[in-house]
Amino acid sequence: MSSIVPLREFVTRFTALFERGLSPSAVQQEGSSLLRTLVSKDDWLPDVFAVPNPDRYSQYLLHCDPLERFSVVSFVWGPGQTTPLHDHRVWGLIGMLRGRESETQFRRNSDGGFERVDVSFLEEGEVASLEPDVNDYHVVANALEDRASVSIHVYGGNIGGVSRAVYDIETGQERPFISGYSSGVTPNLWDRSLNAKAA
Amino acid sequence: MSSIVPLREFVTRFTALFERGLSPSAVQQEGSSLLRTLVSKDDWLPDVFAVPNPDRYSQYLLHCDPLERFSVVSFVWGPGQTTPLHDHRVWGLIGMLRGRESETQFRRNSDGGFERVDVSFLEEGEVASLEPDVNDYHVVANALEDRASVSIHVYGGNIGGVSRAVYDIETGQERPFISGYSSGVTPNLWDRSLNAKAA
Ligand SMILES: [Fe+3]
Ligand SMILES: [Fe+3]
Ligand SMILES: [Mg+2]
Repeated sequence: MSSIVPLREFVTRFTALFERGLSPSAVQQEGSSLLRTLVSKDDWLPDVFAVPNPDRYSQYLLHCDPLERFSVVSFVWGPGQTTPLHDHRVWGLIGMLRGRESETQFRRNSDGGFERVDVSFLEEGEVASLEPDVNDYHVVANALEDRASVSIHVYGGNIGGVSRAVYDIETGQERPFISGYSSGVTPNLWDRSLNAKAA
Repeated sequence: MSSIVPLREFVTRFTALFERGLSPSAVQQEGSSLLRTLVSKDDWLPDVFAVPNPDRYSQYLLHCDPLERFSVVSFVWGPGQTTPLHDHRVWGLIGMLRGRESETQFRRNSDGGFERVDVSFLEEGEVASLEPDVNDYHVVANALEDRASVSIHVYGGNIGGVSRAVYDIETGQERPFISGYSSGVTPNLWDRSLNAKAA
């Protein structure tokens, strides 16, 4: 049975990084090791936040810091689903929970056009990172043709509310967007009576 | 149509009270005025967090501070539903959103028995407060026989996880309990794309 405890502990520990007054890059670095622990086991994500949508990939908010310093999202990819080319404008961490994801990174040229620089694959348990001005442009896709993949993303802001952009790969044309989230609910991380009952 | 914005603003402002380093009693006092604003309009609570359960009153978590310094809960009372006599052990605020609630306060005598001290009614838009060692023992009930009532409670901790007690009014006998919450999900407060789309 799924228990929300690992996600609650992740959120508590991630919040504590900010309380310690760490710099954004130190938060991202220490947060990366917390995320590695979170995705080392796949027994905690409630099913409703892992449901693929046949029409497009889903992004379920799992937690947003009330000061909007970070957010935690489950990305759920149906077979073959893919993002457009997009940016983030805040730091990001991607932890692979279930399945396999491909990431195609792009560099933006001075003329505004895009150049493909790298393709990599994320395997279960692995964590990758993104940084504005370093590697902020990518296309992400489910690398599996026959089943859903799920990755857990953490961003240095409320990612569903960030004003950012998607791009046409060929022309470089930019279209502003705010991604939002795929559901009006988030998991209840805070029911400690469940532990008490289980104990 | 319901918009989550008033609840998000309430959470943001309540969190800011703690960031200012206020004492618990100052948080409770300033928080009381934030809660009054929140319950001054009844157009923001998503229906799924206002559903009465025919068997007993419901407590839906709307937000828990990730440092567990405060929590926000919708109490949903079916016709005639009532709590047992109970305590809280953290400060509390009760804002009446919809309907009417009765509160019967009790004093605990030195012999452990209970004495009824006051009955009051909370009307829509009103806010009441609770404090440990002052007025921590009560029975709360829907004052309406023919329809549901909904109140918004704020507590100085993660109320669903606090080790506290219910009491037998006649004998004073104490039974430990941790209330938990009525749902595995909480509202998503953070989808700012909805505002953008609405604007
Ligand atoms: Fe991305
Ligand atoms: Fe109470
Ligand atoms: Mg009314």
